[in-house]
Amino acid sequence: MINDPVYGFLTLPSNLLYDLVEHKFFQRLRRIRQLGMGELVYPGATHTRFHHALGALQLMCKALDLLKQKGIEITEQEYEATCVAILLHDIGHGPYSHTLENAIIPNLPHEVLSQLMMQTLNIEFEGKLDMALRIFNNQYPKVFLHQLISSQLDMDRLDYLSRDSFYTGVHEGVVSAERIINMLSVAQNQLVVEEKGIYSIEKFIIARRLMYWQVYLHKTVLASEMLLRQVLKRAKWIMENGGELFATPFMQPFIESTPSIADFEENQEYWLDRFVNLDDSDILVCLKTWQYANDEILSFLCKSLIGRKLPKIVISENKISDQDIEDAKKSIAQKYDFINNEWEYFIQIGFVENHAYNQEYEGIKILRKNGEVCDVTDVSDNYNLTALKKTVRKNYMIRF
Amino acid sequence: MINDPVYGFLTLPSNLLYDLVEHKFFQRLRRIRQLGMGELVYPGATHTRFHHALGALQLMCKALDLLKQKGIEITEQEYEATCVAILLHDIGHGPYSHTLENAIIPNLPHEVLSQLMMQTLNIEFEGKLDMALRIFNNQYPKVFLHQLISSQLDMDRLDYLSRDSFYTGVHEGVVSAERIINMLSVAQNQLVVEEKGIYSIEKFIIARRLMYWQVYLHKTVLASEMLLRQVLKRAKWIMENGGELFATPFMQPFIESTPSIADFEENQEYWLDRFVNLDDSDILVCLKTWQYANDEILSFLCKSLIGRKLPKIVISENKISDQDIEDAKKSIAQKYDFINNEWEYFIQIGFVENHAYNQEYEGIKILRKNGEVCDVTDVSDNYNLTALKKTVRKNYMIRF
Amino acid sequence: MINDPVYGFLTLPSNLLYDLVEHKFFQRLRRIRQLGMGELVYPGATHTRFHHALGALQLMCKALDLLKQKGIEITEQEYEATCVAILLHDIGHGPYSHTLENAIIPNLPHEVLSQLMMQTLNIEFEGKLDMALRIFNNQYPKVFLHQLISSQLDMDRLDYLSRDSFYTGVHEGVVSAERIINMLSVAQNQLVVEEKGIYSIEKFIIARRLMYWQVYLHKTVLASEMLLRQVLKRAKWIMENGGELFATPFMQPFIESTPSIADFEENQEYWLDRFVNLDDSDILVCLKTWQYANDEILSFLCKSLIGRKLPKIVISENKISDQDIEDAKKSIAQKYDFINNEWEYFIQIGFVENHAYNQEYEGIKILRKNGEVCDVTDVSDNYNLTALKKTVRKNYMIRF
Amino acid sequence: MINDPVYGFLTLPSNLLYDLVEHKFFQRLRRIRQLGMGELVYPGATHTRFHHALGALQLMCKALDLLKQKGIEITEQEYEATCVAILLHDIGHGPYSHTLENAIIPNLPHEVLSQLMMQTLNIEFEGKLDMALRIFNNQYPKVFLHQLISSQLDMDRLDYLSRDSFYTGVHEGVVSAERIINMLSVAQNQLVVEEKGIYSIEKFIIARRLMYWQVYLHKTVLASEMLLRQVLKRAKWIMENGGELFATPFMQPFIESTPSIADFEENQEYWLDRFVNLDDSDILVCLKTWQYANDEILSFLCKSLIGRKLPKIVISENKISDQDIEDAKKSIAQKYDFINNEWEYFIQIGFVENHAYNQEYEGIKILRKNGEVCDVTDVSDNYNLTALKKTVRKNYMIRF
Repeated sequence: MINDPVYGFLTLPSNLLYDLVEHKFFQRLRRIRQLGMGELVYPGATHTRFHHALGALQLMCKALDLLKQKGIEITEQEYEATCVAILLHDIGHGPYSHTLENAIIPNLPHEVLSQLMMQTLNIEFEGKLDMALRIFNNQYPKVFLHQLISSQLDMDRLDYLSRDSFYTGVHEGVVSAERIINMLSVAQNQLVVEEKGIYSIEKFIIARRLMYWQVYLHKTVLASEMLLRQVLKRAKWIMENGGELFATPFMQPFIESTPSIADFEENQEYWLDRFVNLDDSDILVCLKTWQYANDEILSFLCKSLIGRKLPKIVISENKISDQDIEDAKKSIAQKYDFINNEWEYFIQIGFVENHAYNQEYEGIKILRKNGEVCDVTDVSDNYNLTALKKTVRKNYMIRF
Repeated sequence: MINDPVYGFLTLPSNLLYDLVEHKFFQRLRRIRQLGMGELVYPGATHTRFHHALGALQLMCKALDLLKQKGIEITEQEYEATCVAILLHDIGHGPYSHTLENAIIPNLPHEVLSQLMMQTLNIEFEGKLDMALRIFNNQYPKVFLHQLISSQLDMDRLDYLSRDSFYTGVHEGVVSAERIINMLSVAQNQLVVEEKGIYSIEKFIIARRLMYWQVYLHKTVLASEMLLRQVLKRAKWIMENGGELFATPFMQPFIESTPSIADFEENQEYWLDRFVNLDDSDILVCLKTWQYANDEILSFLCKSLIGRKLPKIVISENKISDQDIEDAKKSIAQKYDFINNEWEYFIQIGFVENHAYNQEYEGIKILRKNGEVCDVTDVSDNYNLTALKKTVRKNYMIRF
Repeated sequence: MINDPVYGFLTLPSNLLYDLVEHKFFQRLRRIRQLGMGELVYPGATHTRFHHALGALQLMCKALDLLKQKGIEITEQEYEATCVAILLHDIGHGPYSHTLENAIIPNLPHEVLSQLMMQTLNIEFEGKLDMALRIFNNQYPKVFLHQLISSQLDMDRLDYLSRDSFYTGVHEGVVSAERIINMLSVAQNQLVVEEKGIYSIEKFIIARRLMYWQVYLHKTVLASEMLLRQVLKRAKWIMENGGELFATPFMQPFIESTPSIADFEENQEYWLDRFVNLDDSDILVCLKTWQYANDEILSFLCKSLIGRKLPKIVISENKISDQDIEDAKKSIAQKYDFINNEWEYFIQIGFVENHAYNQEYEGIKILRKNGEVCDVTDVSDNYNLTALKKTVRKNYMIRF
Repeated sequence: MINDPVYGFLTLPSNLLYDLVEHKFFQRLRRIRQLGMGELVYPGATHTRFHHALGALQLMCKALDLLKQKGIEITEQEYEATCVAILLHDIGHGPYSHTLENAIIPNLPHEVLSQLMMQTLNIEFEGKLDMALRIFNNQYPKVFLHQLISSQLDMDRLDYLSRDSFYTGVHEGVVSAERIINMLSVAQNQLVVEEKGIYSIEKFIIARRLMYWQVYLHKTVLASEMLLRQVLKRAKWIMENGGELFATPFMQPFIESTPSIADFEENQEYWLDRFVNLDDSDILVCLKTWQYANDEILSFLCKSLIGRKLPKIVISENKISDQDIEDAKKSIAQKYDFINNEWEYFIQIGFVENHAYNQEYEGIKILRKNGEVCDVTDVSDNYNLTALKKTVRKNYMIRF
């Protein structure tokens, strides 16, 4: 029984799950913050992927118990396998999660690494993760089990919205996870929500949308994430160009080179060993040390980040105009004489998108009282749900 | 306006306070967890000294506003100075706070370092911290201002009990900070509580006592803290004996040597510069790296800590008997053949004390309806408050 | 200082407000539940108009303090008057509030009665409510003060959504009252919200909409309210037709006759004296007693309500068809042989409307960063706010 | 599934329980407030016995589920019977619960009435309550089931402390019901708490003690309760002495005469029928009406209570001195010339006792790690638990 300020208590439903939690792959998640740079804006948001994974597991147990109560057949083995799959769904995340996903190992998304690590665990646990892997990869006939792990209404999202609201203090994101779970059911082998739950679903989608704007895509968060990525890029560039640079022992190989999937697979022991020792602390120690690096640009970027002197960010519905970019560059060039045309470290143009509800990808299904199953946006009166299907794009210019 | 999941919102009452928060000395506290190893038992307890200091400041503003409303004279300058003092009260804490206080720089308690750092800041801010320093050091005539910062009922305690309960999920520690503050007053230049607040005070003392047993002195926490201290000790021993060991750049000087106060004062720029760059991430990177150290003992200790294979702990009201110690040593010697009589790394005997209420040190004063001021334990009906004055000691043996 | 589980503490900012709270007109609100029949569905929802009025006052103080901090000029007299107006905004509510508004005194809406009672109080308090009355009636130049009391974003709504969510346990209705108030400002003499508050406003409008469907217009609530109204109607009919019926002393005159505004004004002492003694307890005692009345229909209706054997309700997007009504009547006639063509007591056709946001009536104004003031639905990206402007109508048939 | 703001959701575990909740005996509890006059001090405390009984049922289900998980044998029938017993434990409470227990039907405590009503229900439900009655009356071999209903740590207390804290907003009374239940077990046929739960138990006992002083025995509550009892006494006196007085139809018989148990048993249909129609609304309507009674004393008392002009109360550790009583009487006689030596209505001397923990009556048993079972106060280090065994008495004088 583990204390959890969000749900009260967390419990581990089987020995296998207990052993997985004790494993160093999973313990590593204690040292990876859930919201990365989010803590710069929301000082309470220091919670970790470790806690999130345990929370999602807790919700999964509740959901599976409930479906069983409603008469849906779920064997004990399926129960455990689904629990394993949700527990490990984020196992492949590296330091600073999404922020550095493409910066440390450019072509290796965390899903691929999660796969790799789950397979490694499966060997260590002598095949006990077989079914969990099939469910995780949507290769298991009971599709709804996969949907509990990965869909527009999965236990991952239910937990992260609850947990991130709790730790940031942004009450707009609070969702009634318990109420939503109580209204889940299965029809036509699909995870569905009973019709009376429609308002809770609407609230859930809106909460998610608001959390995107207020937390995940908050402009200070965007600016610091961009900065962190540029730091890594610069460090790699220095190494590749024969420079010398301190790095922590486990970070060193990832700065000096960039392994591909093939590298990982061929030389798994080497690379995985290093990767599973990597966490937020390596990044922090590098950042702190590089403040004093010889490379002026790297030193400047690291001092900005550690000292929290972040670049400015302009958000706009329209594309940033060429004129605005020119003006920005001029002012940058004046202030930073060491820039040497390395614009990318000082100015970034781009956009973010917020897709509150995406019907195409594992949409939320409503079970109507007459037995019909339909998409949540097709249930009448929800003008605004229809509105939430649209993707909202915002352009930004981040600049020193 | 900063979101705080505990109090809703935090605000900074003046520009000076804003500038201090922005200062790198204070920003450093973002990287020092409030409860150190507590997170191993309570996964939600990842909050930082940064957040705690802001929270204590928030309570201080409420308390000062309230005292002013009750007609107590507090000038604007005193208001700000008291706020500065509470904001900076923990500024001298190093990585893992209390746990490593004596392990990294043995004879330099954090209070001394806080002093030093506040003085450094005072120079940088051209004397604007003068009054804050006098209040902090209890050299200011209005004694109650100092008592708000440091006494048995100060804003530090009110915040850490609220915050630690919140983040651990241990509801036993919840205190009604708002209610207690509402009942504060000043009499005879002392901070006092109105008589009707007696039950809230009782609850506060008991909450604190329970938090000690359930969180601060939790046996898993004790075991891991002892382990962490032994790691540092071993690392220093290796260095002192001519061994070679990786350390992060800012950790290096503290492993290689042990500066005294005199060193700090004479060579302040050198040592303070290093110290203010040190935080939890340095310790973590060292721990992870030392798992692979040549020294078998160090490697063993680090693997135990990172892999969360903690030593056993026995708690007892009586002193641990010599027989029990002998038995433990025998079993240790059998399991770890590399021990080489270095017992201290494998077994520790000691005790912890919980002193819920200490009348001697800035006790809590009650203002009776008849105007009399007396110690809270002298107000009748509180048999149990009297009981709480006793110190409870528990002996422990921590062993692999 | 009054304990409030929703906000922590409530305080009364002046002696006048204290005296008004102590007045029997206001104390009467202790005996009128905020949600009337809502308690049949949400057993926790037993809170009263008394508590709501105090809560709205609390929010008003926060809002006024904040506007003053932002430099908006509000004199002490205006401050108190606005507080008085919000405290008394519901003073004219009778038993079961909206449910019986047209059933006890058909042509006297509670707003008219509030006016009358505030004027009566103004005489008793020797003109001290003059300015409050002007603000309440939107006759005061600083229009934003009236908007704080009555608009699409007034303190009344902020409190009732927070309070009703809290007591029903319907988390969908939780609004961040504190956050919204922090973002209020005044521009062009209008109450406005700063642009960064747009997401909180969106959340607020949606929360209100969801509370309508889940609580205020919940189908069991609708059915029991309709039933209660029919009981009153039948009782009046019996009296008017020479029947005899028990009623509590203060209810008697309202059952025997139906005073008009003119009656109230001409014979104010008589009618107001009775009205201010009337509350939920009179209705309950009548209902319980009438279970044993000679009139079969009245007895049937009261037994249904007290015994919670409520009529069925069918909700439909389309108008209820004549065929459905005919079928229902046939089945009713078969079950209740004493019906004697008095259909209205056994079947009711009607509709409810949910107008989440009504731009026409004191719409919510956003203050853009460029100083412009515009309606919240005109700020881009809020497709769904636009959607919320539409009125949603649902038809119902309630029948035994 | 019923929304509960305290626990989230409430569910009814069987059809029998559903039918009992629907029964008019139980529905009546909707109209009896849990804290009677408490609402005069804590305006949020309007919750009812109905809600409390459902809450205690919810905790009972959790406790029974947990004990079963721990391997304690509990049959399905025992499960349901224990649930029935806790649901109905307060069924015999009359209007204003404890306050009027001796004032309406002097020699009939609510426990006797609960018995009578449960037996009546048992006949109606054809013996399905047999086992519930045996458990309720401690005549069932598995003693721990009775202890879950009635002991120093029963589900009744766990719920009312949680619920009363929640609705009053007095956070001092918050108990970790979930945590305590998780630590329950059974040893030697006794309900026990695992040793690690000792701090939660300590907190529970202290919370209960604080709730007594701050809520149940709050001095304004005491004064208003005494006043209410005197009102009933006076009304009965008037009737007995041939006076005429309005009363609601169901109140009438209890004002005119005072049935004994024998009366109830002999003429059960008559008396029970009246009793089960009686609730808080009858008292309120009488109080309001009697404000205008001819009897000056009755009218004075009712106006004081409805208008919230309560008598003064003096609390003292020592007995109230004869001199103080004489002085009070003199001042009363001067103010109220109609008193006519009827002192009891104007001045009351008495005492209240707070017995936080009573080892004698179903004390709390701790299951030590060595298997031993002992009283909670015998576990070391709890000096203050020992202190809590003492009864604290406070004397009062309540006077106009």
